[in-house]
Amino acid sequence: MPIPTAPPSGFRDFLPSDVALRADAAATIARVYRSFGFDQIATSAVEDLEVLTGKGGGENEKLIFKIMKRGEALERAHAAKENLADLGLRFDLTLPLARYFTKHGSTLPHPFKAFQMGPVWRAERAQKGRYREFTQCDVDIIGADSYGAEIDVITAILTVFSELGLSGVGVHINDRRLVDKALEAANVSPEKREAACVAIDKLDKVPLETVRAELAALVGDAAAKALEPLIASGTATGEKSGGATLDKISAAVKAAFPKAEIKFSPSLMRGMGYYTGPIFEFRHASLTGSLGGGGRYDRLTEKFGGHPIPACGGSIGFERLMLILEEAKKGAAQAGPDVCVCVFSEEMRGQALAAAAEFRAAGLRVDVFPGDAKLKAQFKYADQKKAAFAVVIGPDEAAKNLVNFKNLATHEETTLSLRDAVAKASAAVSR
Amino acid sequence: MPIPTAPPSGFRDFLPSDVALRADAAATIARVYRSFGFDQIATSAVEDLEVLTGKGGGENEKLIFKIMKRGEALERAHAAKENLADLGLRFDLTLPLARYFTKHGSTLPHPFKAFQMGPVWRAERAQKGRYREFTQCDVDIIGADSYGAEIDVITAILTVFSELGLSGVGVHINDRRLVDKALEAANVSPEKREAACVAIDKLDKVPLETVRAELAALVGDAAAKALEPLIASGTATGEKSGGATLDKISAAVKAAFPKAEIKFSPSLMRGMGYYTGPIFEFRHASLTGSLGGGGRYDRLTEKFGGHPIPACGGSIGFERLMLILEEAKKGAAQAGPDVCVCVFSEEMRGQALAAAAEFRAAGLRVDVFPGDAKLKAQFKYADQKKAAFAVVIGPDEAAKNLVNFKNLATHEETTLSLRDAVAKASAAVSR
Repeated sequence: MPIPTAPPSGFRDFLPSDVALRADAAATIARVYRSFGFDQIATSAVEDLEVLTGKGGGENEKLIFKIMKRGEALERAHAAKENLADLGLRFDLTLPLARYFTKHGSTLPHPFKAFQMGPVWRAERAQKGRYREFTQCDVDIIGADSYGAEIDVITAILTVFSELGLSGVGVHINDRRLVDKALEAANVSPEKREAACVAIDKLDKVPLETVRAELAALVGDAAAKALEPLIASGTATGEKSGGATLDKISAAVKAAFPKAEIKFSPSLMRGMGYYTGPIFEFRHASLTGSLGGGGRYDRLTEKFGGHPIPACGGSIGFERLMLILEEAKKGAAQAGPDVCVCVFSEEMRGQALAAAAEFRAAGLRVDVFPGDAKLKAQFKYADQKKAAFAVVIGPDEAAKNLVNFKNLATHEETTLSLRDAVAKASAAVSR
Repeated sequence: MPIPTAPPSGFRDFLPSDVALRADAAATIARVYRSFGFDQIATSAVEDLEVLTGKGGGENEKLIFKIMKRGEALERAHAAKENLADLGLRFDLTLPLARYFTKHGSTLPHPFKAFQMGPVWRAERAQKGRYREFTQCDVDIIGADSYGAEIDVITAILTVFSELGLSGVGVHINDRRLVDKALEAANVSPEKREAACVAIDKLDKVPLETVRAELAALVGDAAAKALEPLIASGTATGEKSGGATLDKISAAVKAAFPKAEIKFSPSLMRGMGYYTGPIFEFRHASLTGSLGGGGRYDRLTEKFGGHPIPACGGSIGFERLMLILEEAKKGAAQAGPDVCVCVFSEEMRGQALAAAAEFRAAGLRVDVFPGDAKLKAQFKYADQKKAAFAVVIGPDEAAKNLVNFKNLATHEETTLSLRDAVAKASAAVSR
């Protein structure tokens, strides 16, 4: 059997045009987060398994790519029939942040405004649009119990979308305490509350009737009826109030983004069980489901033995964002080098390199043909690379201190001094 | 037992100042590589185990962090006493590149000039300065058998060092074919040649006498004596020639970097067995060992069933580079936000947010205090964040359309219009 040339199922290779688009978006996200005073932090991709599974294991355990022990430790584990794995790949950036803050918090500003960007891994069944390795972009404020934190996080994320040229992003907000109150009033037993939330959370993906039926089967007809205002509101329009704090958050976000729709949505749940207060989600007309979201989670650091610390964070769904940006940029040419310098002959390579250095000194991107090929093949290469200009210096040009300068879009060719060629290329390239 | 708050042994957390320095260096590296016409690509962190181990496994197998099979596949493997792992973390970026090129080469420009930046993982014993997760920055040209590729790679990497403000980087070059010829002439048996190379390669770390003794023990006294010109040259100064190709590469690099030392070094080996032609290494006076290196490897794609394809690449030792840059920047203040806007009271939060938006619209980095605290605590926060200016808007200022503007370095305080404050902050910040 030949060795596979594709990445494993659910993992991806990125072609140059993909990487360019992703790197541009990532740079914009980092720039905006910094412009709001968030500091970038980074943790390792690999965590001790007990950090990832917590004391009891649970739902997340199934998602973890577990790393086997090595050497003698592996042999000992085999012999003792103990756990063969000791490490795992992180499945989100929030849990590592809680560990990080518990460890380093005393040396950090207070409140601590952090952002993180990086890959996470989940051992889920791979399917279209769902990957086992994907990028998360998280922004968090730890140590602030004011709703000012929610405003900061939501405004920063909306600014990212706006700077990426993405219009029409709306915000749905709710409060987990309102949900808890409604579930309690409906006499839903505590152990069924998480499942009830998950059922209601499907409202943006499945019909209202399906959710109603699922909920009734889960909590009984009487409780389902009592929860009707929650689920019916998910499809209703019109502004309602979720209380004073949500109103203040909405007003501040609205002041910063007058055109954005900010909507109180009583059926919004956000899956994660760790939320304790306001929750929010970003929606875009072109996507089913969300473009990101977040909320207040005041108890996550308890896991690491610390006191509960007020925290609020949000995350951009980077892969979903890229779906929209790729669609918008479809057909837009990937930026190639500004100039491709051809190598007329081995004897002329020195001149070609010297000319390239001159173009580069003017701030241009310059590709020197790296191989040994006929000029025809070199021009083909310049076209493949989507270069704007090609430069050739033969012995005749060199003798007169000139270069041959070709516009690869118009095929116009001129012979001129290197200095004029640099000026011409610089003028044509707007960067 | 409490859950650990430190990352696993050999893995690292990065504080905001670390991340800022690393992100700046990475951005410079990417910018320079692009300015030479290299396209960024990316592959997954996780590869099929057979891609990493190759057909026969071998030395690298010990380095691999192996990922356990999941669900039913794991149960089946347990029952059948088969391999429990199916995936692994990549240990370098070169092998994934060879897989990538075999898969996607037909859709890429030819020759293909690629760069990659990302983490790799090695299950080595963690020790000071050696990590189990570290960043590699590779630049490769696939499909060019001209020494022009070597010139391109070496020049691009030297430009990175120069743009990072790192002076005094020298280049050692050699050719694996010269090494093979010398080993053959000395009658070293083929199965001992790799070990002999590894022994000679230690010359930059251990005394000449130690290398001599190790070599004699390995290949015998006669062969060791025959190899004497190779190892003695490792410590000798003075220019020698490694043949026409190395001379041409040296001359071209010298033309681009007249101040850099380019030295033919017959004892340079580069550990990796896959090199087939010119090899090179970057040295800096402040480091034992190298700051990066590379060479020609014409046969790596054979592993994936493809024809041998000429290839040449180089890599920057990112962690070693950061050691030097951290030393150089020690004491340099991390760039904080330009302005920290304090929130006088909850009633004044709207004004604070509106003022922050004005500063941000002028291109400044602006932190709004995200919590609910006394002004004294907010000023302390602004100091912790190393902000340049603090702004406060109380009811008195708001009534007169003014803001209180404080220079946090000089403690000078003035009350002026928001527009004047924005102008003053913009003028003070050179970005």
